[in-house]
Amino acid sequence: MKETISIIGAGSWGTALGILLAKNGHNIYLWHRDEQLVHEMHDKRENSRYLPGIKFPENIAVCEQLQYCIEHSNIIVLAVASHGIREICKKISPFLTETHILVNVAKGIEKDTLLRMSEVIAQEIPNNDLITLSGPSHAEEVARDIPTTVVVAGVNRKKTEYIQELFMSTTFRVYTNPDVIGVELGGALKNVIALGAGISDGLGYGDNTKSALMTRGIVEISRLGIAMGANMSTFAGLSGIGDLIVTCTSMHSRNRRAGIQLGQGNSLEEVLNNIGMVVEGVKTTRAAYNLSQKLGIEMPITSEIHDVLYNNGNVKDSVMKLMLRNKTHEVEEVAHNTSW
Amino acid sequence: MKETISIIGAGSWGTALGILLAKNGHNIYLWHRDEQLVHEMHDKRENSRYLPGIKFPENIAVCEQLQYCIEHSNIIVLAVASHGIREICKKISPFLTETHILVNVAKGIEKDTLLRMSEVIAQEIPNNDLITLSGPSHAEEVARDIPTTVVVAGVNRKKTEYIQELFMSTTFRVYTNPDVIGVELGGALKNVIALGAGISDGLGYGDNTKSALMTRGIVEISRLGIAMGANMSTFAGLSGIGDLIVTCTSMHSRNRRAGIQLGQGNSLEEVLNNIGMVVEGVKTTRAAYNLSQKLGIEMPITSEIHDVLYNNGNVKDSVMKLMLRNKTHEVEEVAHNTSW
Repeated sequence: MKETISIIGAGSWGTALGILLAKNGHNIYLWHRDEQLVHEMHDKRENSRYLPGIKFPENIAVCEQLQYCIEHSNIIVLAVASHGIREICKKISPFLTETHILVNVAKGIEKDTLLRMSEVIAQEIPNNDLITLSGPSHAEEVARDIPTTVVVAGVNRKKTEYIQELFMSTTFRVYTNPDVIGVELGGALKNVIALGAGISDGLGYGDNTKSALMTRGIVEISRLGIAMGANMSTFAGLSGIGDLIVTCTSMHSRNRRAGIQLGQGNSLEEVLNNIGMVVEGVKTTRAAYNLSQKLGIEMPITSEIHDVLYNNGNVKDSVMKLMLRNKTHEVEEVAHNTSW
Repeated sequence: MKETISIIGAGSWGTALGILLAKNGHNIYLWHRDEQLVHEMHDKRENSRYLPGIKFPENIAVCEQLQYCIEHSNIIVLAVASHGIREICKKISPFLTETHILVNVAKGIEKDTLLRMSEVIAQEIPNNDLITLSGPSHAEEVARDIPTTVVVAGVNRKKTEYIQELFMSTTFRVYTNPDVIGVELGGALKNVIALGAGISDGLGYGDNTKSALMTRGIVEISRLGIAMGANMSTFAGLSGIGDLIVTCTSMHSRNRRAGIQLGQGNSLEEVLNNIGMVVEGVKTTRAAYNLSQKLGIEMPITSEIHDVLYNNGNVKDSVMKLMLRNKTHEVEEVAHNTSW
């Protein structure tokens, strides 16, 4: 089935997904709020700002009129930064009918409300089906047809499987998972750990150190996630440890690059200026920290990174504090087991 | 408590652990079967073959006489390659008393018997306490005091905690875990997945691809492990996903480097000649494959790598076959759940 699909937001990820869906034979409208970028993409047939060197297939139409592309498509992919999700939902809401299916690919937690993306979207657009797409998927690689696997999660199984079908290709493999909460939290919170992994690299520590941070990182993410109603096994999957691995080890990751610069002694302000794009993990760290406080969940790595970002904490002290923590049993529940 | 500890096997890992324990104040005998290396280490006070550039602390004695060092120490660290474990146990067995505690750091599965290392050791040395040490720990980094975390596992909790204490330092953090089976299987089987990760890199695939392989890799390792009596949560810990991450992403890993060369089109024989050291994953792949057959456990990645190594399977076909598998639900048990 060939669909007409609007991609709302032409950052690197929105653009890469538009190209993927176009190659799958769908007709694509690619919309972006910055008119200058829209005109550039229209003239050059590529997104030279966020995904340079990748030409658009013919069935991508660059679109300036939000109302026009929404009204002419059935599927809407929300590909804006997480802090822009509520605003864009307010904008598109008047143009939607009940048959529009929304696909969210933003990863984050809303700063003040501490809501997940699908919760924010449901507040603004309560009557449409919403599917979340997440997983280990750098845009740069997807755009070059590098084999990639992701997860789609939604409440409605049939609609989730329909979205799975639209995105699936020989190099882009889509799994389904009913656990929306777990898929969203994994995608959002891994950016916090990626900052930590970058800090460790920036301090000159090694693969051993970073691997330990990642392993303990997914443990504390799972702990929070379970308290919020997620399924534990989701964190062992593509949108959990899978996305965490790719974000913590790849130079494509802005969050990791930001962490490296922090580890090298730069201030948060300097780092954000240098990167020049949204670093999702910075805002997510505050949200994750606040969630852990609110729910009474121990998140030592998140807490140290929060300290570094917002209380001028010393990066080296933070890593050493994590190394020297008092816990010595790996599997806490097992250590309390009387059988040992 | 300062102990006298024999390190049996002066490869990079045995040597790094000897240096660590010496820095912790213990007296170390470092034994190796190759007399030439023993003399070299004695004269140069470093292991220029396997860990060049790191000088030995004064309290390391390089030792030629196996009987002498065993009889003069209380703790014996077995740091030979996994295929040499049975033979070395036969050799040291006559010199042991019941008070000797053995610490095994070899990672593998015995080729013909399909036994874990601690099972092999217990057949040859049934009356001594045995502790397994495993986790994400490249020797090169431990020797340079890079922050590292590992796990010790043993049947006897008190002895396990005693070994934990001996190894613990400010940069070498040791956790305990009672699940010997899980800790051993994680350490052995990650080498199979590391070959796969290397193959993916050698083929020019990306971080997305490798992360998917690693995520699905730990899933199939867990599946086998649970069938063999391991605790699932161990695979989410340092000796499971932690060790897998470090082995699949670091250039220190011989298994990954071997995989890269396979992915670039070299034959297994050429690769083994080029690396010139033991590549544990090659033998472990056959053992893991045989275990999966014997126990009826589906291990698609292991099976493809087995095909590449032993049946001249095409590396590119293997990766694509894994991408195109028929399964589309991420969490298999959830997909069968009627609630979705």
